[in-house]
Amino acid sequence: MQPATEILLIRVNGDQTEDMVDLVATEIAFTLIVNGEVLVSLLCSPIELDAMAVGFLCSEGLLRDRESLLGIEVDEQNFTVKVRIKDLGQNWQKNFNQKTITSGCGKGITFTDPSSLRHLAANRQPIHISTEKIRDLFADFRSRSELYIQTGGVHSAALADSSGIILFAEDIGRHNAVDKLIGKAFLAAIDLKDKILLSSGRISGEIMTKVVRNQIPLLITRTAPTCMSLTYAEEHGVTLIGFARGNRMNIYTHPHGIILDNITES
Amino acid sequence: MQPATEILLIRVNGDQTEDMVDLVATEIAFTLIVNGEVLVSLLCSPIELDAMAVGFLCSEGLLRDRESLLGIEVDEQNFTVKVRIKDLGQNWQKNFNQKTITSGCGKGITFTDPSSLRHLAANRQPIHISTEKIRDLFADFRSRSELYIQTGGVHSAALADSSGIILFAEDIGRHNAVDKLIGKAFLAAIDLKDKILLSSGRISGEIMTKVVRNQIPLLITRTAPTCMSLTYAEEHGVTLIGFARGNRMNIYTHPHGIILDNITES
Repeated sequence: MQPATEILLIRVNGDQTEDMVDLVATEIAFTLIVNGEVLVSLLCSPIELDAMAVGFLCSEGLLRDRESLLGIEVDEQNFTVKVRIKDLGQNWQKNFNQKTITSGCGKGITFTDPSSLRHLAANRQPIHISTEKIRDLFADFRSRSELYIQTGGVHSAALADSSGIILFAEDIGRHNAVDKLIGKAFLAAIDLKDKILLSSGRISGEIMTKVVRNQIPLLITRTAPTCMSLTYAEEHGVTLIGFARGNRMNIYTHPHGIILDNITES
Repeated sequence: MQPATEILLIRVNGDQTEDMVDLVATEIAFTLIVNGEVLVSLLCSPIELDAMAVGFLCSEGLLRDRESLLGIEVDEQNFTVKVRIKDLGQNWQKNFNQKTITSGCGKGITFTDPSSLRHLAANRQPIHISTEKIRDLFADFRSRSELYIQTGGVHSAALADSSGIILFAEDIGRHNAVDKLIGKAFLAAIDLKDKILLSSGRISGEIMTKVVRNQIPLLITRTAPTCMSLTYAEEHGVTLIGFARGNRMNIYTHPHGIILDNITES
């Protein structure tokens, strides 16, 4: 299935109307089955469902390392993803019943107790980068958002270091884009501990729990954070930068985690 | 609690940095208790929690009419909202266990089976409005978004008719803004069946189920719909307009539900 679907619409421009064909983002429900048990249904763009499933499980703390992942089976006809995980223990589904609906730009569900999150290593090395490079990363980031360019209806996330973008993901869901990216990094065995996460969207507390859970030290978004995301970032050692537009940006938390090479004193 | 919180940040502009104070959107978790049972925790902006609770329950089909609402009690210290509803029946919580995580620009939870939704009255009267009036409604809509202007981190929703905006709501969550608006209309006993819903955000399948459930005939957004939202709108009689910007807009579904007065033939 394609991530964008052709539809007919009437375009209005002032006093004129015109029938035309355009693309909208496809949205599907898929069922995530873990060790033979239905865990949840997720709505997302119908691409990279393996990465989506794996990233979701990483973000929820159910999948911790590559040795634990025994298998993934994507059925694109029936929209199911079956994941087998080693050593989940008996009560692994218990947390799943502690429903917390969170602010995924609306409501998301999270099974994460923020107090269970680890702090990022206090002695981590700061990431060296310049404001110009951040501007260039975002220019590259935007140009890769094909589905956004086609439909205007998706979010994107990218993993980068100071030389450039390493991985890119997009989805109708802001949270999904981050989970897909994390899943892609997991499947490619890319260490996140010295990387930068770029996001097109607002950063809520729940997005920040994904970042902390996956030990990503630096998050940069084009838009706004919420107060809860700042609290989690502060508590867990994440450097959070918002409103990154051109050569401007706001550093909200842990400024020692980034060294802007073009600034002599900061 | 205020919906925006003052925080300290470092503003970077090229080679310059400056410490400053700015506002970010507050995000809180509140617990919704229905007839003495904890139903769910929701993350949202800490304003109008009564409307938020009521709108959520309307959208989930748990609250159908004003006679069924026996009481609302908001505890702003402990962030709980207690709602008492008449005649819920014994198994009302059962649907709540059918977890479907949906694409609330990420993941939202919905307990709605779209096939349970009613079709809007086939013989409803079309809404008469001009493209200029829609442009003016959106100009007014944006100017009311105080929290967005302060923080850049929230979504908004408004209820309107062809003369102007009747109700306005904003929240860190796209879905929450719609639910709050629906809750405010419910509490003010405003009939939705001949009104227009304005949204600042993307329209997913889940947002459309809220619109259908609450029998709102016309939805206009500044941005994109997903394919699933078009499917639900088509099936249930909703006129959906997207990318409403200036005098331009796309009519996606049920064009007979709107008559643009400035267009003689459409």
